[in-house]
Amino acid sequence: MFRRRKSEATSLASWNNTETTRAIKAFVEATTTEGSADFLQVKDRIAVFDQDGCLWVEQPAYSQAVFSIAHIRRLAPQHPDWASHELIRKVLADDAVGQATLDELSEADWAEILFVAYAGITQDEFADAARDWLETAKHPKWDRLYTDLVYEPMGELLDFLREKQFKTFICSGGGQDFIRVYAEDVYGFAPHEIIGTSIATYYATGASAPEVVRLPKLGFYNDKEGKPLGIDRFIGQRPAIAIGNSNSDRQMIEWTASGGGPSLVAIVYHDDAEREFGYGPAGGLREPGHGAFDQDFHDWLTENGHPVISMKNDWKRLFAFE
Amino acid sequence: MFRRRKSEATSLASWNNTETTRAIKAFVEATTTEGSADFLQVKDRIAVFDQDGCLWVEQPAYSQAVFSIAHIRRLAPQHPDWASHELIRKVLADDAVGQATLDELSEADWAEILFVAYAGITQDEFADAARDWLETAKHPKWDRLYTDLVYEPMGELLDFLREKQFKTFICSGGGQDFIRVYAEDVYGFAPHEIIGTSIATYYATGASAPEVVRLPKLGFYNDKEGKPLGIDRFIGQRPAIAIGNSNSDRQMIEWTASGGGPSLVAIVYHDDAEREFGYGPAGGLREPGHGAFDQDFHDWLTENGHPVISMKNDWKRLFAFE
Repeated sequence: MFRRRKSEATSLASWNNTETTRAIKAFVEATTTEGSADFLQVKDRIAVFDQDGCLWVEQPAYSQAVFSIAHIRRLAPQHPDWASHELIRKVLADDAVGQATLDELSEADWAEILFVAYAGITQDEFADAARDWLETAKHPKWDRLYTDLVYEPMGELLDFLREKQFKTFICSGGGQDFIRVYAEDVYGFAPHEIIGTSIATYYATGASAPEVVRLPKLGFYNDKEGKPLGIDRFIGQRPAIAIGNSNSDRQMIEWTASGGGPSLVAIVYHDDAEREFGYGPAGGLREPGHGAFDQDFHDWLTENGHPVISMKNDWKRLFAFE
Repeated sequence: MFRRRKSEATSLASWNNTETTRAIKAFVEATTTEGSADFLQVKDRIAVFDQDGCLWVEQPAYSQAVFSIAHIRRLAPQHPDWASHELIRKVLADDAVGQATLDELSEADWAEILFVAYAGITQDEFADAARDWLETAKHPKWDRLYTDLVYEPMGELLDFLREKQFKTFICSGGGQDFIRVYAEDVYGFAPHEIIGTSIATYYATGASAPEVVRLPKLGFYNDKEGKPLGIDRFIGQRPAIAIGNSNSDRQMIEWTASGGGPSLVAIVYHDDAEREFGYGPAGGLREPGHGAFDQDFHDWLTENGHPVISMKNDWKRLFAFE
C-alpha cells in the first residue's frame, strides 16, 4: 500500500504563505510555547480530522461506497439469492458506479446494502477484503490507487502537529473498520486513532479460535451529532483542533470551538474544480449539504474568524505525486 | 488526587523473584528484542488491563458502586420523587453500603439506579461529581482514599511496559466515564486509553454552548463477551498482553491468547486475605464468579501455561504506602 513519505514537519512546504496558513502556524505556536497565554499541556493537544474530502479525495464517489459495490459484484456469483434483492440488483446494474446512482440511495438503503455484503464475516476477513480492493482499485480521474490521493498539505499538517506533540485522530462518518485498514500506512494513524461509523459485532466461539464477527446491525453512527458523541466516547475529551469539509462536520466543529480553551477549527473548501473537484457554496458539482458545506456554515465560520482552507489559494500542490 | 510516583521502570521492585515474575520479564524481553523470534513491532505492542481487582482494590464493594450510592444520597433531598422509587429507597436504607446489599441487586437493578442518578447531566458535570467523591471518600479497611489503593506491582508493570513501548489500555466492565476521571492522575492512562461500559449520550444545543449529555440508556456493555468486542471497537487490534482477575475477563483473555502471535495473558489471584481480601477458587469472601474467577478458568490458565499472579507469593508489597 502507498505509504506517505513523512515531510519535514515544520515546513508545511505545500502550503502557500497565506493568511490561513499563518493562522494555523500561529495557533500551533501559541498552544505549544511555554509561557504563552494559550499554552496547552501535552495531554490537551488533541486534534481531530474528518477523513473523506478532508484528508483525501471523496469525489466522484466515496471510496468505501466504490469498494462496497466492487465487493458485492465480486461475491454475487456465490450469492444467487442476491438476484432477487432489489437494492443489490440496482447497484450491480450501474457499471460506472457513479455518484448519480449513489445519490439515489437513501442512508437506509446503504445500510441494507452494507449489511447484506459484510454480515457474518470476521473482522479479519473484512480487513482482507478491503486491503485487496485498496491495493488494486484505481480512481477514475487520476487512474491511481485511492491511497495515492491523500492531500499532501494535510499530510504535512499531521506531521507538523505530531511533531508539536498533538495527538491526532480521524473522526469520520465513514466506516471505522474500512479506514483502519489503510490509515496507518497512508498517514500514520494507529487503529485506535480512528473513530467512525461502526456495525455491531458479536463474539463467536466454537470449533475454531474465538473471533469478532460482524452483524447486520448498526453499532454507532458517527456523523453530524454523532461526531461529538463519538469523540466524547472514544477520546474522552474535547479536542483543541477540529478540521472537516462538510455540513456533517458542523457539530464536531461547533463543539470544539465552544470548549472554553484555545481552539482551532477549520474547513477544507473544495473550490478548485481544475485541480480536483469544485463543490461547496461556490461549487456546483453536487448539492450543498451532500459531501459539501452550505453558505450558512461558511458564514458562521468566517464571522467567527475560523479559517476556511481554500484548496485553490492555500495549497501549492494537492498530491505528493504532483 | 493521588498521583503514583513513576517507578524505576525496569526494576519491578515490588515483585518477588518468582516463576511468574520471570515469565513476565521473559515475555517482554522476547517481544521487544530485535532479532528474537517473538519480536513485536511497536505498533503491535498492545496491552490491556482490567481495572477493579486488577489495578486497584475492588472489595468489599466496587468503588463506582460506593460513589453512586453516595451521589444518590447527596442528591436525594433535591429529588423527593425518589422516595417512592423502591430501588433507590433500598439503596439509601443501607448506611454501610456493603457488598451484601450490592449483591442483592441484579444488573438490571444497577442499571436503573445509575440511570436515575446520572441521567440528564452533562459529561462535565458527571466528571465533577466523580472527582469530588474521589477526593474525599475513604476506603473502610485502610481509611485511605480509593486512589491510594492502587496495586504498586501493577503500577510498576505499567511503567515497565510503557518503557518498552507497549501501548497500555484499561478494559473494564465498570463505567468508562468514571475511570477516566482518575486514571490519568493515578496511573497515567489518557482518557482515550480507557475502555469500559458506557451510557448513551446525546448532543444538546440551545441557549448555552453545545454539550454532550447523558441518557438513561445503556450505550455499550463492556463485560465478558463485551470485552473483546470493546477492544476490537476501540483499539482495533488484538492485544499481545491481557491481564484480568475474574471470570469477566475470560473472553478477553482467551481472545488475546488465540491471536496467533506471541501473547501473554494472566490473572491476578486474590489469595492474600491477610494483606488484602481472599477470593477466587481458594478464597471464600465471595461466591466464585462474582468479582473472582472459578476453578475451571484457573485450570484452563495453568494447563495452558498462563501465569496466575499470586498476590501472596509474587508481590513484596501491595501498595506504595506500605
